[in-house]
Amino acid sequence: MHRVNRGKLESKSKVEVKNAKDLSLAYSPGVAEPCKMIYDKPETVYEYTMKGNMVAVVSDGTAVLGLGNIGPEAALPVMEGKAVLFKSFAGVDAFPICLNTTDMETIIETVKVLEPTFGGVNLEDIAAPNCFFIEERLKKEVNIPVFHDDQHGTAIVTVAGLVNALKLTGRKMSEIKVVANGAGAAGIAIIRLLHHYGVRDIVMCDSKGAIYEGRPAGMNKIKATVAKYTNRDKIQGSLEDVIKGADVFIGVSVAGALTSEMVASMNQDPIIFAMANPNPEIMPELAIEAGAKVVGTGRSDYPNQVNNVLAFPGIFRGALDVRATHINEKMKQAAVEAIADLITEEELASDYVIPRPFDPRVAPAVAAAVAKTAMETGVARLKINPEDVRKRTEELAVIGKE
Amino acid sequence: MHRVNRGKLESKSKVEVKNAKDLSLAYSPGVAEPCKMIYDKPETVYEYTMKGNMVAVVSDGTAVLGLGNIGPEAALPVMEGKAVLFKSFAGVDAFPICLNTTDMETIIETVKVLEPTFGGVNLEDIAAPNCFFIEERLKKEVNIPVFHDDQHGTAIVTVAGLVNALKLTGRKMSEIKVVANGAGAAGIAIIRLLHHYGVRDIVMCDSKGAIYEGRPAGMNKIKATVAKYTNRDKIQGSLEDVIKGADVFIGVSVAGALTSEMVASMNQDPIIFAMANPNPEIMPELAIEAGAKVVGTGRSDYPNQVNNVLAFPGIFRGALDVRATHINEKMKQAAVEAIADLITEEELASDYVIPRPFDPRVAPAVAAAVAKTAMETGVARLKINPEDVRKRTEELAVIGKE
Repeated sequence: MHRVNRGKLESKSKVEVKNAKDLSLAYSPGVAEPCKMIYDKPETVYEYTMKGNMVAVVSDGTAVLGLGNIGPEAALPVMEGKAVLFKSFAGVDAFPICLNTTDMETIIETVKVLEPTFGGVNLEDIAAPNCFFIEERLKKEVNIPVFHDDQHGTAIVTVAGLVNALKLTGRKMSEIKVVANGAGAAGIAIIRLLHHYGVRDIVMCDSKGAIYEGRPAGMNKIKATVAKYTNRDKIQGSLEDVIKGADVFIGVSVAGALTSEMVASMNQDPIIFAMANPNPEIMPELAIEAGAKVVGTGRSDYPNQVNNVLAFPGIFRGALDVRATHINEKMKQAAVEAIADLITEEELASDYVIPRPFDPRVAPAVAAAVAKTAMETGVARLKINPEDVRKRTEELAVIGKE
Repeated sequence: MHRVNRGKLESKSKVEVKNAKDLSLAYSPGVAEPCKMIYDKPETVYEYTMKGNMVAVVSDGTAVLGLGNIGPEAALPVMEGKAVLFKSFAGVDAFPICLNTTDMETIIETVKVLEPTFGGVNLEDIAAPNCFFIEERLKKEVNIPVFHDDQHGTAIVTVAGLVNALKLTGRKMSEIKVVANGAGAAGIAIIRLLHHYGVRDIVMCDSKGAIYEGRPAGMNKIKATVAKYTNRDKIQGSLEDVIKGADVFIGVSVAGALTSEMVASMNQDPIIFAMANPNPEIMPELAIEAGAKVVGTGRSDYPNQVNNVLAFPGIFRGALDVRATHINEKMKQAAVEAIADLITEEELASDYVIPRPFDPRVAPAVAAAVAKTAMETGVARLKINPEDVRKRTEELAVIGKE
């Protein structure tokens, strides 16, 4: 498919240029008019150009899928695919920007220099810990939304699933014990979001076991920060040690990291998100056999697929529609709630805590919720009715349509 | 038009993503296959991605149309328009890259960092003299074609017109005296190309009059270089002084710079290219009244329109089709000849020395000639039949079709 089409993305003209009159409107001399408008009133760039609907999908190719650091050219098929998803799920125009550098300052500088062209930036497949610093810096230094999907997309969908799993099992965020395995981009973002959600008891493990404040080996800036708000009792030990009695397991690590014995050692009706790709930390059937109540994975052939496509198209759609300057924590939480709420209490079941990726209600619901919250939290530059955002997203999406 | 459509360019998916199977092919896990291919064999990025048909239209917004330094946001409508022309005239995908910097080193660095994504770079509306240095450096430092259209596009079309005007008036390049007015990007590129064409007697003027070696005021690096191969007799004086006896006037300056008296003072049957925009150095009817044999302008409402659209779409089409690493002087000359040769000796007339912008034969002819010359001069990474390039360009173009 990739070869026959020479990739998956092309540019498309919204206007016809077939004769001299068309040319004089789309190009010289007619094009001088919008140029002058924008020069006089910079904000009109959102009205007269593609900027307001165009997202840069930026990668340095250092952490691509499960393939690792394969470089910017080899990352291009993924970024084209991502752009296709943006368009198909929410009518967001997106364009791959694969960078011939892995230097953090150069990446930041490049995105800043590209700001005039784009309405938003989706960071993709950039290795930890650089991805954290790059996003943090860019959020401060540009005036368009910057969103590292490997972190927040995964976090939002996982937490939406957890919200529903807790409803199903009658537990509260403030009471559960969560153990996360894997301290990469997604893992860190998930526990950060859980922390914002009021989860008090979190222990994060990496390949060296539980992370705790003052651990002598295998720490970095990010893990040190994590240690500040997790694992308050400074529990040490392996995953096997710390998983005992936990309500929730969050895996963003490697296949086989979670055994049946570990599941059996957890609290009653444990909730497992085993998201290692392509093979999860534990296969769902094994987890259920060992007592798990809810199991989510990254796989499309099992229930409760944690798929970022449930989040990023709607999030950017909503952010772009209100010309948000940022995607803040409240907007992410609004996305979580919008995704979770699509499943009614009657529908809620062990094998249905996360909507399916091609549920056409998802992107419109997320977009409306994100737009509304952006307006409420003061990061929107435009006021519109969230219901209009929902309808427009429905119209623009091509999924679920003939 | 710009407002209704919110710009003129969008991204378009070449593949459908409407269900889980589509998703697994276009994105994870299927997309890993082309990634691995490219990682193993980097050249296959041209087969599996959009790169081979994607041109960056790069501007810093410092010299936009006749509007000057209006900045990157206000330049965006022009760059979108350019991308639309690339697509409409030759099926080349193009994407605007408007840069939030005017610093030469930052521009060069940014384009280098963006190289993995693009098959070519069209520099646009970057002020002189930076445009010269940026193009020169990038040609050395990247492995994809870099082409500053304001220089070479204009030069190629002007010289094609001149080739035909000389045929019509029975003169030779080696014998004519040319006076050029305006030492900006286009002016410099035109006289450079004329020099390559064997024109020996060229005098270039700027606002301070004739440029000559050692002129004390108003010089820069580029003008100093110009002075080395033009104006060998070091003639001093105003345009009015130096135009006397000239065969050809090349104007890329300001409205009204050329008077009827100056035209009358030129050699018999003078050839005038008065390309100031939107109002030429002299209006065609006045020039003809004063004795001009051939008059070309930038305007669509007069004959012999010097329109870059005759050059850049076909040039990039040809360069991309053979995966050229550069657009060299021979390729530019091939474009000149291809454009000029479309008008037969029988058709040739004072008011028809340049093909019309919407002549559907132009881009295919230019593409084939450029591809052929790229292969002959060793800058092509792929061998294909130029006739196939011509046919493919015909198929891809939308102009002149219903």
